Amino acid sequence: MEINIQKRVLEANENESEKLKRFFKEKNVFVLNVMSSPGSGKTETLVKTLNRIMPEIRTAVIVGDICTTNDADRLDATGAEVTQINTDKFGGDCHLAANLIESTAREFDLDNIDLLIVENIGNLVCPAEFDIGEDARTVVLSVTEGEDKPLKYPLMFRLAHSAILNKIDLLPYLDFDIDEAEKNIKEINPDMPVYRISATKEQGLDPWIKWLKDMVKSKINP
Amino acid sequence: MEINIQKRVLEANENESEKLKRFFKEKNVFVLNVMSSPGSGKTETLVKTLNRIMPEIRTAVIVGDICTTNDADRLDATGAEVTQINTDKFGGDCHLAANLIESTAREFDLDNIDLLIVENIGNLVCPAEFDIGEDARTVVLSVTEGEDKPLKYPLMFRLAHSAILNKIDLLPYLDFDIDEAEKNIKEINPDMPVYRISATKEQGLDPWIKWLKDMVKSKINP
Repeated sequence: MEINIQKRVLEANENESEKLKRFFKEKNVFVLNVMSSPGSGKTETLVKTLNRIMPEIRTAVIVGDICTTNDADRLDATGAEVTQINTDKFGGDCHLAANLIESTAREFDLDNIDLLIVENIGNLVCPAEFDIGEDARTVVLSVTEGEDKPLKYPLMFRLAHSAILNKIDLLPYLDFDIDEAEKNIKEINPDMPVYRISATKEQGLDPWIKWLKDMVKSKINP
Repeated sequence: MEINIQKRVLEANENESEKLKRFFKEKNVFVLNVMSSPGSGKTETLVKTLNRIMPEIRTAVIVGDICTTNDADRLDATGAEVTQINTDKFGGDCHLAANLIESTAREFDLDNIDLLIVENIGNLVCPAEFDIGEDARTVVLSVTEGEDKPLKYPLMFRLAHSAILNKIDLLPYLDFDIDEAEKNIKEINPDMPVYRISATKEQGLDPWIKWLKDMVKSKINP
């Protein structure tokens, strides 16, 4: 019963996200959906990313949280246009859905934006099921989590186009086998690039930035 | 529309969990629902907890994951009775619901069990909304996450009866203000006890173990 209800919700979202994909294509905007557990360092990764890609790539950010505008405030400091969605107004939803993204994205001046980054709600499960009209998905995993997370949350890793292993500066203090973690990611999604970074210490960012820039440039018209 | 559907699902779960509470009371079993983000160290905390409370408190564990039996294997080594629920059979659900707990709990010899611990799916959002017939809830937060998580996921912290701040052995290497984190927890839930521990290094466990034992003993009949 519950599964059927979920199916209807997901189908409605899919129709919406298909429309949204056409709209973003028309507007010539590349959309990246960034997902992770709470506390993996999504926001810090995006702050350091925005500092490196702007103004070459004109970027706007939608950041989702159930409550607080903490992340939006941090992202705002980069100079990017940022809008916060708080889902507590929508039943405390655990993911962002296409209809919410559509109404929020329309508030931006999309004709002057190349890249729209959506920082999804911290959750490795539900956001994977809700397409929000994105061109690509990036999943961020902190090395303070377990190496087996890709096996435990396979849908998230199967549907992603790139993965970031964040907080590598903490590796000396952890019993975490980063090669094992990457092996587990590749087991779920063999061809996905995996970037080992420390956002706070600004280590390993270049290959990730190159991937993102190449993706955006390959999809939008100059 | 989506919110109404969710409401119906939640109401159905509540009816089920009320029945389940009566059943556990009849069986004289205390039920603890343990929740957190992925990678906060729930399983390691439970392994170290089981080693300290058994056999004095006869304990069984239900562990929820979307996929894999990794956690059940680790908990099994403590000698506790352990059953794994994989929700990928149920649409990859992001939480455990009361009906699933009921059918699983009935497989245990509940007449010879004092404490049933449910290790919920790694997710700070949805599990908070689904009562599974528990007597108490514990939320585990890793100090590798942000101090603001209690403010971002208030429902989880509001409905909990105790909180664990785990991985304190990593504090020297992190830019994490543990007092700020505790202040944020108390802002949401002023009277909740907060235990600072390192499960892997077995630091700070005694007060947490005392709380758990006292809770169990105050609710079950000798």
